[in-house]
Amino acid sequence: MDTGARPAPREYGEGLWRHYGEEDLPAPLAAALAAFAEHGYHGTSVRDIAARAGLSVPGLYHHYPSKQSLLQGLLELTMSDLLGRSRAALEQAGGSPVERFDAVVESLLLFHMYRRAQAFVGSTEIRSLEPVFRVEYIATRDEQQRMVDAIVQAGVDSGEFRTPHPVDAGRAVTTMCVGVSTWYRPSGRLGPDELVARYLLIARQMVGYFDAAS
Amino acid sequence: MDTGARPAPREYGEGLWRHYGEEDLPAPLAAALAAFAEHGYHGTSVRDIAARAGLSVPGLYHHYPSKQSLLQGLLELTMSDLLGRSRAALEQAGGSPVERFDAVVESLLLFHMYRRAQAFVGSTEIRSLEPVFRVEYIATRDEQQRMVDAIVQAGVDSGEFRTPHPVDAGRAVTTMCVGVSTWYRPSGRLGPDELVARYLLIARQMVGYFDAAS
Repeated sequence: MDTGARPAPREYGEGLWRHYGEEDLPAPLAAALAAFAEHGYHGTSVRDIAARAGLSVPGLYHHYPSKQSLLQGLLELTMSDLLGRSRAALEQAGGSPVERFDAVVESLLLFHMYRRAQAFVGSTEIRSLEPVFRVEYIATRDEQQRMVDAIVQAGVDSGEFRTPHPVDAGRAVTTMCVGVSTWYRPSGRLGPDELVARYLLIARQMVGYFDAAS
Repeated sequence: MDTGARPAPREYGEGLWRHYGEEDLPAPLAAALAAFAEHGYHGTSVRDIAARAGLSVPGLYHHYPSKQSLLQGLLELTMSDLLGRSRAALEQAGGSPVERFDAVVESLLLFHMYRRAQAFVGSTEIRSLEPVFRVEYIATRDEQQRMVDAIVQAGVDSGEFRTPHPVDAGRAVTTMCVGVSTWYRPSGRLGPDELVARYLLIARQMVGYFDAAS
């Protein structure tokens, strides 16, 4: 059993940023994710997490010395997966602002469709992070936002995007994509490809890329 | 001290749906809100809530016989306030789809700017509701979405809104407005009026009301 060695950052070959298999978190983090998603950080004990992971409490502490280190490890992996996929999507996209915009929006959408539990714990347990790591975590999240902002600004500069408020439009696009994790269900009305196609259209309208919407 | 009599539904005279003063929840619900927002439902005890409310545990139980009834009472008031404000906004709006759309979007935005703690507990503790009430709660939330859906569809029927996917656009608009509660701070870059004005513009673009964006 993988009892918790920190995984190396993933690499995403051509198109692999779109691929979501089963979770492959280290067992203690998978157990912490399930427990935090169900009962919240403050409603979960280290004993609960050890039991879910099939480990003794000392065995769990060997890799993660506290409940806080489990939350930090989980959120660290969550953000590095999201950022890694967004960066890969951008590297593999064409050079025009609309191609780059579509790539980063699609990467945000897919992550929030397929990693709903992580997205939920990531957004609800910021309150439970110790201050120093909380600052780091928010900085990483801001980096994701700046990736979107830079593309929207490039589209405005090139005249392709006609929003008068690029910063607000970029934030609204991110908020919409993140929010998909709160209601998306694989069994829902739209298949994932159709949902992505429709949301890409809506996102383009939000930044004033009107040609695509006519 | 108001120890918990259930308040009657509020009435919102002309423009009052836009007015947000201090919270005026019954003391036990105000205490439950603060505790749930800080530590989550499962991380909070009835004793914590009683202490925050300045009540004895038996005094708290007199009005709310369980922690679950506190959560239910809180979410019931939250949804009836949100729905009451949205209905008032619609009743007081002009008759055109875009006027009605602006009214309901503004009511959603303001609620999620000024009632962030309720919005947070409402979205994060659905998991903690007992099944029967959970079904009722989700039905009320769906009613709010149907209000948006009906207006977007009316706009498409009249030719004012040119989205090819009214249901998806309506859901995306709601998701964006709800998500404002996750990042809005009164001390932020934009004042509330400016933020509402910019988001109304973005929301109109999402449903394909292009005239407003040019």
